Amino acid sequence: MTTPYTSAQVTAELAATPGWELADGQLSRTVTRKDFRDALLYVNAVGYLAERANHHPDVAISWNTVTLTVVTHSAGGLTAKDFALARQVSDLG
Amino acid sequence: MTTPYTSAQVTAELAATPGWELADGQLSRTVTRKDFRDALLYVNAVGYLAERANHHPDVAISWNTVTLTVVTHSAGGLTAKDFALARQVSDLG
Repeated sequence: MTTPYTSAQVTAELAATPGWELADGQLSRTVTRKDFRDALLYVNAVGYLAERANHHPDVAISWNTVTLTVVTHSAGGLTAKDFALARQVSDLG
Repeated sequence: MTTPYTSAQVTAELAATPGWELADGQLSRTVTRKDFRDALLYVNAVGYLAERANHHPDVAISWNTVTLTVVTHSAGGLTAKDFALARQVSDLG
């Protein structure tokens, strides 16, 4: 789970992870919710998934907009853990 | 509440708002909690205060570290609303 993917692997995995893009070597996803309250509820759902995976994205909230970024710092790159979490987050909608 | 403070007013208000600093014309506060879960609980408390005030800081979570920034965009500067929210947040510890 913690071996960094090669560039080719990242490209292939990313294609299978809708709603996420590559930004500065990390996976990034930005979503817009109805308002701040709804954005915070969304962040709590993401937080539940992150705690379950013991793998935590960086989170930025700006009123109704949430940006998530995820990378495996300890591996120095993107790993299966990142894509697994990303797909679970995508399933939240 | 929504008239932007002058620079002198900002300096005086800031001195009365412990735990916050000025960054790019906004009020900024960074706190470190025990872990991600505790950071997220803290953000929820901040979110409650923000909803009550109908004034919402930008929030950044990086594992156990939370950075809040607040400004009154509609006024183009810092106002009494910002300092009122900042002090309520400081009271959370």
